[in-house]
Amino acid sequence: MSADSIKKRKILRVADGEAKWVEDTIVTEQVLTIKLNGEEFVTVVCSPEYMEDLAVGYLASEGVIRSEKDISSIRLDSKGGFIHVTAEHLNPLYDSLQNKRYITSCCGGSRQGFVFASDAMTAKKMTEQNVKLHPDQCFHLMQKLQQSALTFKETGGVHNAALCTEDEIVLSRMDIGRHNALDKIYGHCLRQNISVKNKVIVFSGRLSSEILLKVAKIGCEMVISKSAPTERALELAEELNMTTVGFVRGNSFNVYTCPERIILKEASLN
Amino acid sequence: MSADSIKKRKILRVADGEAKWVEDTIVTEQVLTIKLNGEEFVTVVCSPEYMEDLAVGYLASEGVIRSEKDISSIRLDSKGGFIHVTAEHLNPLYDSLQNKRYITSCCGGSRQGFVFASDAMTAKKMTEQNVKLHPDQCFHLMQKLQQSALTFKETGGVHNAALCTEDEIVLSRMDIGRHNALDKIYGHCLRQNISVKNKVIVFSGRLSSEILLKVAKIGCEMVISKSAPTERALELAEELNMTTVGFVRGNSFNVYTCPERIILKEASLN
Repeated sequence: MSADSIKKRKILRVADGEAKWVEDTIVTEQVLTIKLNGEEFVTVVCSPEYMEDLAVGYLASEGVIRSEKDISSIRLDSKGGFIHVTAEHLNPLYDSLQNKRYITSCCGGSRQGFVFASDAMTAKKMTEQNVKLHPDQCFHLMQKLQQSALTFKETGGVHNAALCTEDEIVLSRMDIGRHNALDKIYGHCLRQNISVKNKVIVFSGRLSSEILLKVAKIGCEMVISKSAPTERALELAEELNMTTVGFVRGNSFNVYTCPERIILKEASLN
Repeated sequence: MSADSIKKRKILRVADGEAKWVEDTIVTEQVLTIKLNGEEFVTVVCSPEYMEDLAVGYLASEGVIRSEKDISSIRLDSKGGFIHVTAEHLNPLYDSLQNKRYITSCCGGSRQGFVFASDAMTAKKMTEQNVKLHPDQCFHLMQKLQQSALTFKETGGVHNAALCTEDEIVLSRMDIGRHNALDKIYGHCLRQNISVKNKVIVFSGRLSSEILLKVAKIGCEMVISKSAPTERALELAEELNMTTVGFVRGNSFNVYTCPERIILKEASLN
């Protein structure tokens, strides 16, 4: 990670009834405004690294662009906290759908977990099983994520996400914002044209519906988290046919949805 | 907490190489759209309890209203996921300031940590010292928060915040959203006219600049967190003269800013 992402600071440490001034490492925040074709699109607070990927990933997961090809230029002004994106091809449906709540008819039934119309449009149902993991691989990947997450250990202030094959981390990103870490991964994959087929997302934070949706938009079938999921995230996962693994701690974890992508002994499933 | 906030679900638990179906408790999410005077103001994802307080706290911390008196009615439609707020007196400055980034002149110097103009307007500098805590009181309050946080223990899925006197919890709120827990406290204080003077906020999550700002807007001088702060949060805390305590774990914690509100032996401060 970049030197800009942390800062040294003198703090007062109180331990066993004694107070002492010590030097501590603190994680930084960058306020970043994405300007799209000259207009302020959104202001996010993020860790100051991979900000181009963040902007591309954010715009793609919001459904504003559909691929890297839609973007003609990106220019980061990190001192001012702006990133200027010009895109010639905006999603024609985007303007009409923006922030519109997607209320399904009561007789519908499908896609009812979706709140925003653009989410229902951009999150893909996983009809295939391109990835299957043995429990040991789940533990191994979580361990790898934690090893790669040195800043988290040092400062306790960031979330980590990684795109992984069944055995190895392909790409890991940290950010003070939970969603940002995933947007940085999404943006990188789009910009470098990296396939997400056969890959899983391993994540340090809680699996909310927003995180689950981001993983779906990236296009991964499985997400493995150290923390707990929410009910809405699990409903979406069921609807999108995604495997959710949570609470990976010590030598145990929970499979909440679609356990068929975890390789288990026949007998133990009854 | 309300029964709506959790749900039972059958999951596959994998431990020591064995897989077993067990019943687990999962935290729920509610999508809530705040409609202000008939227009969609914002859509948040929250835990489905104290939603009126959440709406009031949200509008107040955004600077749209300044007190409970500005609101003439609130009506919750929890099935539809809407909360209808009518307010006769909107902050006259709000419209012109909304989402405008606040860029100070280079020779300014003061309030430079603020990104949004409305934040610089609503977050108050703490010129007094109405509260002073002994280290034992910090440990005690964090312990109380954790005892009150049964859902967190049960599901691992929520954040907890509490408004406290030096010795006791006055009010605690949990939410799947970090900011929501604080907005629910803020809204309750505004609606019940509860004084925040002499009180501190105890929080389970990380101290980002947004959390620090919320605490300032509520009007508390001190925030105590189980987790780490970010550098921007600490810069804001220094500017607002707030005490930040973090990493309260076992018998130690860190004081990052304004240690004069923590009662320490003279000798240990050198």
